[in-house]
Amino acid sequence: MPFETNHAHSVTIACIQYEPKIGEVEANLNAIEERVREAHAKGAQLIVLPELANSGYVFDSAEELASLAQPIPDGLSAQRLIALASEMDIYIVSGLAEVSSGVFYNSAMLCGPEGYIGTYRKMHLWYRENLFFEKGDLGLPVFDTPLGRIGIAICYDGWFPETFRELAIKGAEVICVPTNWVPMPDQDPETEAMSNILHKAAAHSNGLFIACADRVGIERGQPFIGQSLILDATGWPLAGPASRAGEEILYAEITPSDVLSKRRLNEFNDKFGDRRTDVYG
Amino acid sequence: MPFETNHAHSVTIACIQYEPKIGEVEANLNAIEERVREAHAKGAQLIVLPELANSGYVFDSAEELASLAQPIPDGLSAQRLIALASEMDIYIVSGLAEVSSGVFYNSAMLCGPEGYIGTYRKMHLWYRENLFFEKGDLGLPVFDTPLGRIGIAICYDGWFPETFRELAIKGAEVICVPTNWVPMPDQDPETEAMSNILHKAAAHSNGLFIACADRVGIERGQPFIGQSLILDATGWPLAGPASRAGEEILYAEITPSDVLSKRRLNEFNDKFGDRRTDVYG
Repeated sequence: MPFETNHAHSVTIACIQYEPKIGEVEANLNAIEERVREAHAKGAQLIVLPELANSGYVFDSAEELASLAQPIPDGLSAQRLIALASEMDIYIVSGLAEVSSGVFYNSAMLCGPEGYIGTYRKMHLWYRENLFFEKGDLGLPVFDTPLGRIGIAICYDGWFPETFRELAIKGAEVICVPTNWVPMPDQDPETEAMSNILHKAAAHSNGLFIACADRVGIERGQPFIGQSLILDATGWPLAGPASRAGEEILYAEITPSDVLSKRRLNEFNDKFGDRRTDVYG
Repeated sequence: MPFETNHAHSVTIACIQYEPKIGEVEANLNAIEERVREAHAKGAQLIVLPELANSGYVFDSAEELASLAQPIPDGLSAQRLIALASEMDIYIVSGLAEVSSGVFYNSAMLCGPEGYIGTYRKMHLWYRENLFFEKGDLGLPVFDTPLGRIGIAICYDGWFPETFRELAIKGAEVICVPTNWVPMPDQDPETEAMSNILHKAAAHSNGLFIACADRVGIERGQPFIGQSLILDATGWPLAGPASRAGEEILYAEITPSDVLSKRRLNEFNDKFGDRRTDVYG
């Protein structure tokens, strides 16, 4: 079982809800740096940024994306984040537009004081992302860091319960979710966002901490819904949901190794031990 | 693919939230009959009753359960429900304490105008149920009826995303959930019940109609939380949540075959077509 752990210490996690500007990579990186410095000053050790935080989301064309995407970890955006993480002795998970051998991915990079740690490429592409990106080909990696075992999911990945189940089974304790949530077609905008319901359910049924950093703003006519949140491994919010339209930084203190005790419900029940793998594999 | 369907008609579904009395099978069956007649009079064609609706829940001993459990479909409780369904030309899903060859199961029976249709035996046993019942050995059956393809899950089954995923993949359109939800240890009783969050997420991410009939009352010191609800295949409530403590009948009109269109999100995305079975099987 991969659930042995020695991360029995607390971690201050921050989710930066902000509004990237489409196409303005340099300005976005400056905005990110400013907010990362603020979160670090308030004690954050693990900082989550939105999906495509460096590029914006609503590309007009493949050519536009090609002009914005960069390699990971060698591109300018990745290198600036790596330098920040190293300088501040923190971990950062950020969505980035990635190009690799001429192929484009909607990716997220994890870096820390030790430098580049790893990349996740979004497996489930939403709507017109299918025109620009290839589906992720790196599976669902779990990164073992001194803070805890970190998994990453991006936006529409969260609509698939298997995403969290697979990460939990592989030993993840904390899932960082860079996202650009859009209004669901069937969603009453006044009610709780379905995105939040899905992540509460995932955190609760898997006993995982989940930290979602959404963007805000309206980009080329496409609104984004904010409502970033940080969930306890019981499924209940530790911070947020943030506002629907404003920039904001959420903070919460978590102890990643608590997933073990939070999966054990009583002397009879364990959220993983009770799985009927004889029936559903 | 099992998603061909010809159930393109609407069905009125009712969830009966009521308080069974522990050990009083005859009185419980009378109470059930009265409420089923009321729901039928209001047009219900598919009626869902709580978990262990005939026996109550908090058994003092294995001997007590043995004195209450009955065979399905030949026992008195099953026969009364089958007779009601036949008389009223309706379908009923009810939790029942089942004995089969000396083994006890926390089961649910589906019957209709044509008589007995099938049994589901709870796969995930909660807490002290493990002292009294065997884990279900019938898998997750889907019953093809003239109303639609019906799956069944009972209470703690809903804590496992695989339950709904498996039923959806097998072609289920409507999941009936007889339940006896208890307060979760980490639940603030003033907030929305985690049970409701889990079922909203399951309905949304699988594109399934889900009808949960909970019990109410305090039995031998154990409170139950009510809040029955009927969910659209988008995940949003069509009826409920019902009150936390009062008896109540919820009604909703659904069209089971709508699951097909509700799983199709836009020209690029389909909740099942987008699954990355190459990664998570």
